Amino acid sequence: MVHRIGINALMDEMIERLTSAFVAYDPDETIIPARAGFQYDRPDIGLLEWMPAMQTGSAVTVKMVGYHPRNPSVKHLPTILSTISIYDTASGHLVGLADATFLTALRTGATSAIASKFMASPRSSVIGLIGAGAQAVTQLHALDRVFSLKKVMVYDSDPAISDSFLERTSFQGLNVVQVNKNSLNDLLQNSDIICTATSVDIGDGPVFEDTTTQPWLHINAVGSDFPGKTEIPKSLLQRSLVCPDFPEQAKNEGECQQLSAAEIGPSLVELIRDREKYAYITEIPTVFDSTGWALEDQVAADMLINFARQFNLGTTIQIESVSSDPRNPYQFAVDKNYSIPVSEFARHKNLEA
Amino acid sequence: MVHRIGINALMDEMIERLTSAFVAYDPDETIIPARAGFQYDRPDIGLLEWMPAMQTGSAVTVKMVGYHPRNPSVKHLPTILSTISIYDTASGHLVGLADATFLTALRTGATSAIASKFMASPRSSVIGLIGAGAQAVTQLHALDRVFSLKKVMVYDSDPAISDSFLERTSFQGLNVVQVNKNSLNDLLQNSDIICTATSVDIGDGPVFEDTTTQPWLHINAVGSDFPGKTEIPKSLLQRSLVCPDFPEQAKNEGECQQLSAAEIGPSLVELIRDREKYAYITEIPTVFDSTGWALEDQVAADMLINFARQFNLGTTIQIESVSSDPRNPYQFAVDKNYSIPVSEFARHKNLEA
Repeated sequence: MVHRIGINALMDEMIERLTSAFVAYDPDETIIPARAGFQYDRPDIGLLEWMPAMQTGSAVTVKMVGYHPRNPSVKHLPTILSTISIYDTASGHLVGLADATFLTALRTGATSAIASKFMASPRSSVIGLIGAGAQAVTQLHALDRVFSLKKVMVYDSDPAISDSFLERTSFQGLNVVQVNKNSLNDLLQNSDIICTATSVDIGDGPVFEDTTTQPWLHINAVGSDFPGKTEIPKSLLQRSLVCPDFPEQAKNEGECQQLSAAEIGPSLVELIRDREKYAYITEIPTVFDSTGWALEDQVAADMLINFARQFNLGTTIQIESVSSDPRNPYQFAVDKNYSIPVSEFARHKNLEA
Repeated sequence: MVHRIGINALMDEMIERLTSAFVAYDPDETIIPARAGFQYDRPDIGLLEWMPAMQTGSAVTVKMVGYHPRNPSVKHLPTILSTISIYDTASGHLVGLADATFLTALRTGATSAIASKFMASPRSSVIGLIGAGAQAVTQLHALDRVFSLKKVMVYDSDPAISDSFLERTSFQGLNVVQVNKNSLNDLLQNSDIICTATSVDIGDGPVFEDTTTQPWLHINAVGSDFPGKTEIPKSLLQRSLVCPDFPEQAKNEGECQQLSAAEIGPSLVELIRDREKYAYITEIPTVFDSTGWALEDQVAADMLINFARQFNLGTTIQIESVSSDPRNPYQFAVDKNYSIPVSEFARHKNLEA
C-alpha cells in the first residue's frame, strides 16, 4: 500500500479518517471497553493486551498488542508488536487479519498530530522528541504533515538511538530537514511541541525534570500506557491543561494516573467537538495523554481493508472446515471427498469484484 | 489431522490432554481471566467474546467465540463460530491462528466426558440429549469413548433437528448403534446421563420441567453460557451436586446463576484432584455446569499445534513487514528493494525440522 500511494498520502488519509471518527464518535454505537491484558516478568518483562472495539451492527476489531521493552536490544524486534483481527458481527466470522505493528505506529503518530492541531500553537515550528525509537519516527512524520516545521531536536537516554534517528528520518517525503541531537535542557526550553515516547520502567518516571519552557508548550505524552509508568513531571502536568484520549484508561495507565479527577481536562473528542470554546488553549501549556485508544485501531483497520480491496492486495486464507450441514461438526471428517469451500472472505471479495 | 489419525484417536487424545491439564492446573502459572465480550441485537441477536489464557513464561492463547443462534437457519452456518490465536510471550508475536469452531465442539464434548467419568454412575449406558445440534454430536461421541453405551435418546424442540441427528451420528467410529428420537419425558425418566445443549433464549429457561429421574442422574449442562440463559430447573439443581468448570464465570453465565454460593459444589478441578473424597457422588444426582473454560481452549490449541508440527500441516503466512532496524517502522516503505523476510513461525518450523 505504501508503495502504491506513498507514505505521505497514507499518513494524510490516517489523519483525515481519525479526525472524522473523533468528530462522529458516539459511545452508544461504538462500544470500547477499557483494554485488559497480561503483565509478566517471565521469560522477560512484558505485556500482552487485547483492545476490542465494536461498531454496533457491523464489525468488531480486536487488536492484540505486545509491549516488550527488551525486544530491540535482545531480539532485534520492535518494542511494540501487534496484530489486528476483524470479525463480522452478523455471523461471528473472522474476516480479516493484519499486522498492526506498523499500523500502531502510524495511528499513534496521526493522533498526536490531530491533538497538536487543536492544542499546540498554530505557529509551532520547533519539535522536541524525547525517546527516539520507532514511535518517534511516526510522531515526527505526522507532525510534519500538519505543521510547517523548521527544526527537530532529538534526545534519547541511549546516544546510539538518537544518533540513528537522523538516518531513520531521511526518507523521501519528510519536509523538515534540520534534525539535530540535542541536550535535554535545550530541547525542553526551546520546543513548541514535545513528544515523549520512551520505554521508561514502571516507577522510574518522569523522564525529565520540570523547567522553564515555552509558555505555549504542547506535549504529546505517548509512552505512558502501563499502570505505574509515567513520563511527565507532575508539576508540569498540573500547570498544563491535560487532555486524555480515553479518560477511563488514562486514569489507570496514562499521565492522568498522577492527577486528581478535577485536574484532568476534557478528552480529545470533547475538545474537537467544542473547538471554539477551547480555542484559547493553543496559547497555554497543554498535554495530550495518549494511552492508545481502540477506536484508533478500528479506524486504522478500516483504512487497511479499504486499501486492500481498492488495490486487490492481501491473501485469502482458508482456516475453516465449513460443513454443508451447520449442525454436523464431523461432516468433513467422515466424508473423504469433502472439498474445502471458498471462504466467507473470498466470497466477499468476489461480490465486490 | 482427522484424516491422518481418525476421529476416535483425536477425541481420546483431547480427553487425555484435558484430564492431565485439570490435574496439573496451577492458578499461579496459568492465568485465566473471566471472559468478556460484546452482546448485541443488531444486525441480529448475537455475542462475540474473547477468552484469553496465559501459560506464564511461554504462551498466551486468545479464543474469539461468536454465538449467533440464528446462524443455522438464516445463514446455514454453525451457531458457534470461533477462531483461536497463539502468541509468544517472549516477543509478543502471533505464532499461530486456527479455526476453533470444530475445536470448541471437540473440547466441550471431551470435557463433558471427563466430568461424567467422575460424576456419573460408571454403569451409565443410557444417554439423553436435549438439544440435538452441533454440540450434541461431540457430546455423544466423547461419552461413547468413556462409557459402554447401549442407547441414546434424543430430543429437540425442532423435530427436524432431532430427525437429522441420526444421520449426523452415523459416522464410522461411534460404538453405540441405537439412537432414537424420544419424548422429553421418556428421556428424563430413563437416562443415566443427560446433556443439554440448546439455544434457549435469555429468560426462557429451563428447557424442561423437573420430574422423577434415575437417582444417579448426571447432567452435563452445556448450553448455559450467557447472563440470564439457563437450561436446568432450579429444583433439580438444588437436589443435585452442582460442579462448575470455572466458578467465577459459572456464577455469571452458567446454571450457577440460579444458586446461592452455599448451593454450589466443588469445581471440576477440585473434584478430580480429591476424587476419593467425592467417590460417592457417582450414585447421587449431579450437574456439571459447563460454561466453557479458556484452559480447555489452550489445551486444544496445544494439541493442534503439536499435530500440525508432527504431520507438517498448516501454512506459513507472512503478515508482518519486519525491518532490519527494529526502531525504523518505515524501512520497508522507503527501500524499494526491501524483501519480505521469513516469518518467526517459519523459523520456528525450520528449527524443529
